[in-house]
Amino acid sequence: MRSRYKPWAADLIAANPEIVIPNPEQQKGKWKEVFGNDKPLHIEVGTGKGRFILGMAKANPEVNYIGIELFDSVIVSALEGVLETEGGIPNLRLLRVNGADLLEFFEKGEVDRLYLNFSDPWPKTRHAKRRLTYKTFLALYESVLPENGEIHFKTDNRGLFEYSLVSMSEYGMLLKDVSLDLHANEPEWNIMTEYEEKFSKKGQPIYRLEAQFNAN
Amino acid sequence: MRSRYKPWAADLIAANPEIVIPNPEQQKGKWKEVFGNDKPLHIEVGTGKGRFILGMAKANPEVNYIGIELFDSVIVSALEGVLETEGGIPNLRLLRVNGADLLEFFEKGEVDRLYLNFSDPWPKTRHAKRRLTYKTFLALYESVLPENGEIHFKTDNRGLFEYSLVSMSEYGMLLKDVSLDLHANEPEWNIMTEYEEKFSKKGQPIYRLEAQFNAN
Ligand SMILES: C[S@@+](CC[C@H](N)C(=O)[O-])C[C@H]1O[C@@H](n2cnc3c(N)ncnc32)[C@H](O)[C@@H]1O
Ligand SMILES: C[S@@+](CC[C@H](N)C(=O)[O-])C[C@H]1O[C@@H](n2cnc3c(N)ncnc32)[C@H](O)[C@@H]1O
Repeated sequence: MRSRYKPWAADLIAANPEIVIPNPEQQKGKWKEVFGNDKPLHIEVGTGKGRFILGMAKANPEVNYIGIELFDSVIVSALEGVLETEGGIPNLRLLRVNGADLLEFFEKGEVDRLYLNFSDPWPKTRHAKRRLTYKTFLALYESVLPENGEIHFKTDNRGLFEYSLVSMSEYGMLLKDVSLDLHANEPEWNIMTEYEEKFSKKGQPIYRLEAQFNAN
Repeated sequence: MRSRYKPWAADLIAANPEIVIPNPEQQKGKWKEVFGNDKPLHIEVGTGKGRFILGMAKANPEVNYIGIELFDSVIVSALEGVLETEGGIPNLRLLRVNGADLLEFFEKGEVDRLYLNFSDPWPKTRHAKRRLTYKTFLALYESVLPENGEIHFKTDNRGLFEYSLVSMSEYGMLLKDVSLDLHANEPEWNIMTEYEEKFSKKGQPIYRLEAQFNAN
């Protein structure tokens, strides 16, 4: 998701280093100190404009959240959402970085759960390596999650969903709660992402699964 | 799968009570005695003409197998396959019964693994209860398998496969080794069923998964 060019985005981000952490590699292993508590940490890779991660952080104050997004022009909307929230969102931080560099920011076991929502599908086979459920990404996630750590994944893209089922299976992960139409019977805990709202309004099915790394 | 009427099938079955067990409810809890050893027991519900279960029994002498099939006219082909095998197949038995009556034939934990291959798809929604992956069947399987027991399932039918993914998920099962095209990279341990041979020859993808009951 590239938004239109927003020359002011970088300035607004730089002005809010308490929310969009400027040098996250310096916090590696210290995220509990950053949040000032011992709560579990859930992260989202490819946060976009932040509808999901802001909603989750507000709904679940007993969990800390970090949203990771590549582009200033996109993450700035998440930042604006935090700034517009009265009292801020104390259990949420944002990182304007590349998810491929996850190991620079988190120690093994420092992340308790990882969310992927409507990740870019990269439909061409020669771009498979860029999909956020390609095996090299799964290996990264495994490196920051604890044993039996979980990835929760939603998408409207059937091709990416099928690819991910197989990629995760081949990685040896256990799959749970596979849904091929999440909104046919939407769980009360579901928080929609921007893309989810758009596609489900059009009547498109939303696919979802949970995948667990398998220690044995 | 209904084959043409075979008036001689019932007679051939009756003449081979060591292979097609006549009153299997009398062996409930005693299958180790029937086989005369302590090997694990794997069963297939909807065995058809037996290509799979005969192949598995020959390939894996360290496991006991039971093939369950509704129709005389079909199971008789499996019986013929056993009779044509030199020395017989000592680790295989057949039951001409309804899989819906599984609890009459097996004690809790007496079955170590359950196979479903190319089960009848029953595509109409009002027939969903007849699908062998409907929740009432899953409950039966859970009752004869041990904790964390597994179902291994193959089909050419995309609708049934998707239904089963969701039905098993909703039942709380963990899914493993999901494949959407088994023959793209056929595992060396794969044994084809009659239907599998037919459909894969036509170039249709074969779907496969393993599902584990989740004790916690
Ligand atoms: C299709 S959008 C979905 C946004 C949001 N998750 C949703 O569901 O509405 C994918 C987002 O992931 C971001 N993204 C893609 N690759 C990324 C990476 N390697 N690291 C961080 N963000 C990434 C893109 O910039 C884009 O904003
Ligand atoms: C489509 S055929 C597949 C046969 C074989 N498994 C294969 O893959 O080639 C399904 C078989 O399951 C049998 N079957 C269906 N429901 C059954 C039940 N409740 N109990 C036992 N067998 C059943 C049918 O009679 C039929 O032979």
